[in-house]
Amino acid sequence: MQRTEISVLGEFGLIRYLTEKIELKNPSTVKGVGDDAAVLDYKSKQVLVTTDLLLEGVHFDLVYVPLKHLGYKSAIVNFSDIYAMNGKPKQITVSIGLSKRFCVEDLEEFYAGIQLACEEHGVDLVGGDTSASMTGLAISITCLGEGEKGKIVYRDGAKENDLICVSGNLGAAYMGLQLLEREKTVFAGKDKEEVQPDFDGKEYLLQRQLRPEARKDIIERLAEKGVVPTAMMDISDGLSSELMHICTQSKIGCRVYEDKIPIDYQTAMMAEEFNMNLVTAALNGGEDYELLFTVPLEFYDLMDNMEDVKIIGHICKEDMGYCLVTRDGQEFPLKAQGWNSLNE
Amino acid sequence: MQRTEISVLGEFGLIRYLTEKIELKNPSTVKGVGDDAAVLDYKSKQVLVTTDLLLEGVHFDLVYVPLKHLGYKSAIVNFSDIYAMNGKPKQITVSIGLSKRFCVEDLEEFYAGIQLACEEHGVDLVGGDTSASMTGLAISITCLGEGEKGKIVYRDGAKENDLICVSGNLGAAYMGLQLLEREKTVFAGKDKEEVQPDFDGKEYLLQRQLRPEARKDIIERLAEKGVVPTAMMDISDGLSSELMHICTQSKIGCRVYEDKIPIDYQTAMMAEEFNMNLVTAALNGGEDYELLFTVPLEFYDLMDNMEDVKIIGHICKEDMGYCLVTRDGQEFPLKAQGWNSLNE
Repeated sequence: MQRTEISVLGEFGLIRYLTEKIELKNPSTVKGVGDDAAVLDYKSKQVLVTTDLLLEGVHFDLVYVPLKHLGYKSAIVNFSDIYAMNGKPKQITVSIGLSKRFCVEDLEEFYAGIQLACEEHGVDLVGGDTSASMTGLAISITCLGEGEKGKIVYRDGAKENDLICVSGNLGAAYMGLQLLEREKTVFAGKDKEEVQPDFDGKEYLLQRQLRPEARKDIIERLAEKGVVPTAMMDISDGLSSELMHICTQSKIGCRVYEDKIPIDYQTAMMAEEFNMNLVTAALNGGEDYELLFTVPLEFYDLMDNMEDVKIIGHICKEDMGYCLVTRDGQEFPLKAQGWNSLNE
Repeated sequence: MQRTEISVLGEFGLIRYLTEKIELKNPSTVKGVGDDAAVLDYKSKQVLVTTDLLLEGVHFDLVYVPLKHLGYKSAIVNFSDIYAMNGKPKQITVSIGLSKRFCVEDLEEFYAGIQLACEEHGVDLVGGDTSASMTGLAISITCLGEGEKGKIVYRDGAKENDLICVSGNLGAAYMGLQLLEREKTVFAGKDKEEVQPDFDGKEYLLQRQLRPEARKDIIERLAEKGVVPTAMMDISDGLSSELMHICTQSKIGCRVYEDKIPIDYQTAMMAEEFNMNLVTAALNGGEDYELLFTVPLEFYDLMDNMEDVKIIGHICKEDMGYCLVTRDGQEFPLKAQGWNSLNE
């Protein structure tokens, strides 16, 4: 593979090279890359802003994450935050700091992933910053989106008797990470040509970890049916942790039923292989980027029949606390063991 | 001094601790820290977005930069980008990645600097991200601001015969950096108690490097007089480099007069002490965060009399190129030797 040193292009040359193919598509993007700031026009819509800082060795491991996937995922996790407000992502800025070990072709891979995510979600890349880094790769992404006044969904609006719903299934991304970590250990110290990682039949778990999706489809489906959730979040730190955010901010309690938590069979098989508690993995495994939301009880039938959405419990009075109800009817307090990068 | 480990608070505890004192002041800030995204309402105004990634060892050196100053400067350089669009900064998000060598008190210092800058410029802190870093400090800031439709100033609007103006003076921040680097070298290897850095009479240069200002006052002064520049940028990489951006994007040439370039006497004295070419330092020294702008010729008297603004040259036809006219009338092509972090 070709290797072009970044110094050949220089900072401005590099930015030009990476951004010259960008076509702006959103009417709200007035001016993208190339000035002191991007210019947007949201007219009567409200502006949503979310940001993420991703650092090598903390948030990702380039041993098993291809740069294109990293670009894709970096964008997707920010889109997911905008959907979690019941909004639509419209623009992103991408800043990267990179050490000398990266070349122009690496950056092209990374930006190809960003571009792919942007195309799938109708988002314009409007700015950023490129600089040297003393160590590894640092990525900072800010995403802007639009929300309709009165239809933006916060974390603090859940009400007693509301239904608790999640999209997709949980724990798969966490199992994918375990699998990658295991194969990395097997890999270490051996001749790379000799060892082939054993991912057979586990492609779904890998995909969930390396190439997660943001649930645009769920937001569209809810809008189609005229449902505005009372509270919503995306699941990045784990179901327990996110549920407790909604409960504390909404000042209510909750009951979640073990047998209702959606889990894919590959996740279940992997948990068995690793001798892990499956429900713990589904409750606390992060990075699924599914949507967790609450809706008034009157939408029960609608939610029960909505594709890829599952009712997993209900909201109750604050003094009843946050509990998981097991298959045999016992109640256990939920604990937020979610992934906490500062304690690692 | 007290040292509280960050792990004592944890990620969510830390965010709560750092953000609980935040009061939102702008009517355009609907919802700040605490949800998946911040919510802003710009009504009929256009939205300006700029972002910066600052990495330890590349963009700053904690040996001589106090954390409070670093916080202040990190915010200010982003505000400066918004002013350079003829806009007003309104919100920022601040993300930081930090290694174990930083404690809660360090972060408080950093945020105190951010808060001070925000107060001075009427900006709300509305979001961010806090995470671990394997090495040093990584800071990412995104600033949002408002601009009036039709009054936003780009880089590509300079016209033939326009006057080229700058605010303040140039080269001081660069000289401050040279001074700090020299004292750091003197410092190295010696007993810190014994050596006192020699900054006497050079406080202004240090201040320009460590605690730069964003020229809100110039934007207000221009608005007061009803002047909308035809092109504008802030000077972060050096006058030559920024002028060439305006010229290439506006497809025009320029003449800048050596004897018109505003230089403070401390900058001049320092250049002599370092045996450096003063004009080269003023043309290519970065980080002054002054405003460089062009206005139609009819505003000559207005600009000539405007406080802290200087006319340094004029725009000419594209085929005349970009030149510096020396005191003796010779013309030298301008070179963009601006600070390029990727080539270091």
